[in-house]
Amino acid sequence: MRPQDIIRKKRDGAELSREEIEFFVRGVTSGEIADYQSTALLMAIFLNGMTDAEQSALTNAMLHSGDILDFSDIPKPKADKHSTGGVGDKTSLLIAPLAAAAGICVPMISGRGLGHTGGTLDKLESIPDYRVNLSLKEFRAVLDRCGFAMNGQTAEIAPADRKLYSLRDSTATVEAIPLIVASIISKKGAAGLDAMVIDVKTGSGAFMRQDDRARELARALVKTGNSLGVRSQALITDMNQPLGQAVGNSVEVLECIELLRGEIKEGARPVLDLSIELAARMVTLVELEPSIDAARARINRVYESGAALECFRANVEAQGGDPRVCDEPAKILPLTEKSFKVESPRSGFVIKVDTEEMSVGFIADVKIGSELQTDDLIGTVFSADVERGRRAAKRISSAYEIANQRSPELLSLIKEVIE
Amino acid sequence: MRPQDIIRKKRDGAELSREEIEFFVRGVTSGEIADYQSTALLMAIFLNGMTDAEQSALTNAMLHSGDILDFSDIPKPKADKHSTGGVGDKTSLLIAPLAAAAGICVPMISGRGLGHTGGTLDKLESIPDYRVNLSLKEFRAVLDRCGFAMNGQTAEIAPADRKLYSLRDSTATVEAIPLIVASIISKKGAAGLDAMVIDVKTGSGAFMRQDDRARELARALVKTGNSLGVRSQALITDMNQPLGQAVGNSVEVLECIELLRGEIKEGARPVLDLSIELAARMVTLVELEPSIDAARARINRVYESGAALECFRANVEAQGGDPRVCDEPAKILPLTEKSFKVESPRSGFVIKVDTEEMSVGFIADVKIGSELQTDDLIGTVFSADVERGRRAAKRISSAYEIANQRSPELLSLIKEVIE
Repeated sequence: MRPQDIIRKKRDGAELSREEIEFFVRGVTSGEIADYQSTALLMAIFLNGMTDAEQSALTNAMLHSGDILDFSDIPKPKADKHSTGGVGDKTSLLIAPLAAAAGICVPMISGRGLGHTGGTLDKLESIPDYRVNLSLKEFRAVLDRCGFAMNGQTAEIAPADRKLYSLRDSTATVEAIPLIVASIISKKGAAGLDAMVIDVKTGSGAFMRQDDRARELARALVKTGNSLGVRSQALITDMNQPLGQAVGNSVEVLECIELLRGEIKEGARPVLDLSIELAARMVTLVELEPSIDAARARINRVYESGAALECFRANVEAQGGDPRVCDEPAKILPLTEKSFKVESPRSGFVIKVDTEEMSVGFIADVKIGSELQTDDLIGTVFSADVERGRRAAKRISSAYEIANQRSPELLSLIKEVIE
Repeated sequence: MRPQDIIRKKRDGAELSREEIEFFVRGVTSGEIADYQSTALLMAIFLNGMTDAEQSALTNAMLHSGDILDFSDIPKPKADKHSTGGVGDKTSLLIAPLAAAAGICVPMISGRGLGHTGGTLDKLESIPDYRVNLSLKEFRAVLDRCGFAMNGQTAEIAPADRKLYSLRDSTATVEAIPLIVASIISKKGAAGLDAMVIDVKTGSGAFMRQDDRARELARALVKTGNSLGVRSQALITDMNQPLGQAVGNSVEVLECIELLRGEIKEGARPVLDLSIELAARMVTLVELEPSIDAARARINRVYESGAALECFRANVEAQGGDPRVCDEPAKILPLTEKSFKVESPRSGFVIKVDTEEMSVGFIADVKIGSELQTDDLIGTVFSADVERGRRAAKRISSAYEIANQRSPELLSLIKEVIE
């Protein structure tokens, strides 16, 4: 078998066999297949797609390209959440302690930020001394201690994905659904999960801006996850504006801890609602509760009792961070003192938000549908640098589209469930 | 400008601007664009094609990626021939001296063999001490001395092509017409040509097996050559069987020298006919004669007078080879003493030849349409190794398809002229 013959076959639109896909993934992992061959295949996959069988084989081969974590001796169901990411999406920080407090083992392997949005790891690192580069042994110890652990992808987990992922951004092959699916599920599968819930974002602030593409991705994720023995469900959720009020690593962690503490600002409520829903779906997927209503009730109980907050505190301590962040988050987190008000240039209703203009360090006071008078506060930018802060405030001011009429459609956060 | 944005644009089927193409080719040349980005773009070009404007811009950018040879002080028209290659195609060895003897300056930059066919350079190197790695100064001196010079592509000529060409075979992006055209024309253009004739082979022994693909390639070559100021014409010629009798570096040079010497074996005549036709078309393109008939007559004169042979002899000497090869070719060329007869397993007519089975060192005694009795000689294999020679003879024996009926269509060597 030669790499170029496999590339040619995909280039010509034929279906690759399981053996061919495994050969390629092995070669990528070992380095025997050159990067320039990998990217030619990635582009051919981008343009010609993959069948369900190819998708499953690719994901499985990538999943098995490195170590498979084995937590089978932990007497709890294992589940995780994955989000395709969006501006202000910090639900991992809530879902992990909620699900763990509800009795699920959550071995969460997360990524760094992509493009203009920060990743879960970047957010967690704003807690002083919090470590996201645990060894497998440490990861395991944290899991045992508090039911969830948060870590970066190690070299041992799905190295083929690591390699291919690093090539995709610079070769315009990021948005290919077969490659996205293989990347996500291979990492999750290698973490030894029983179940997985996936939050596929759609809208102007999401990676998948169109509903039909988001639905296509969600279906492929669920189908592939199930085909590899990970019970999967996907929610398609709205990302036409930042999720919650806070955008930026420190302020997002602050928002989450405040929510866990029961300090619910109205603008942050969607973060909590979505987190509870996703955690509840994890509970039903692993059959800890017989119905979604019972699962929601279970998650609400661990939220209201403070058990989830305590779980989070235990995790911060176990991962080397300062647990006092749970008591005095605004004091422990590195929040910038300099702030810059963003005010409305006119009166009217917010009808649209261009989230690409949301640089880090912003707290929004309005959302789509909010009514504003001239000079009303849209939000506050935080920046250590005055010039940068002023520019960001200006950019964000123009990112809020204000019209005379409220836009007719009220956006529902959860648009669709794909099972 | 970022490489990935250019890749994305081509991936999405949009037309790249001249600036984008120039940026990419500059980056390929300087090494600032990584190989894995180049191959992603190559695959996107393969699958999405290029417009005429893109084709011309790509070719022009590659042509200008290195030195442009300047022979403007040589008071002769400059022209060259390019062939897409096929088994037994050795016309360069005849066309160069024919055209040079007729008054054309032929700065021929040739390639090595691809796949199962030897390249012009490989053939020439079978002349003892013949050098194909001349410096630019030496190349120029040879041109001055005998009107044609044969050399390999140097690092200075179209380095972007050199780089991209080296990536295409291992990434299944060889057969893309825009890439083939850019590769061929950029090298020819950098050699400072006024005109160019292109021999596009079609049939089972050619790179382009289908007539419509060959025609598409021929048209793109002519259009692009003309758009860059190189007057171009293409001939589509048949390659359903080896051209001439000899296949293999030494025996092909032998066949050519015998032809130049006027020793015309019937089976070698197509080599001479095609060479004269292609050389005559070079003569008309550079307007040394007003009509194709006058041009053919001019080429025939330099052939029959022995001027072309003398031109070849002068070249061999100038390029360091042993000029006695023109007097006693069978003695000077390294021909293998061990030979293996290939005999017909049955009686009938040759209707098809699988040229892929033609390993080097073979002289054919029959062609499509020949009538054979059982045990009649098909040809002779030459090999220093007995075992290999026997295997080759067996393979070639089965490569000749023999049927009871002569196939109805008599193949004409020149199928079409594209102007």
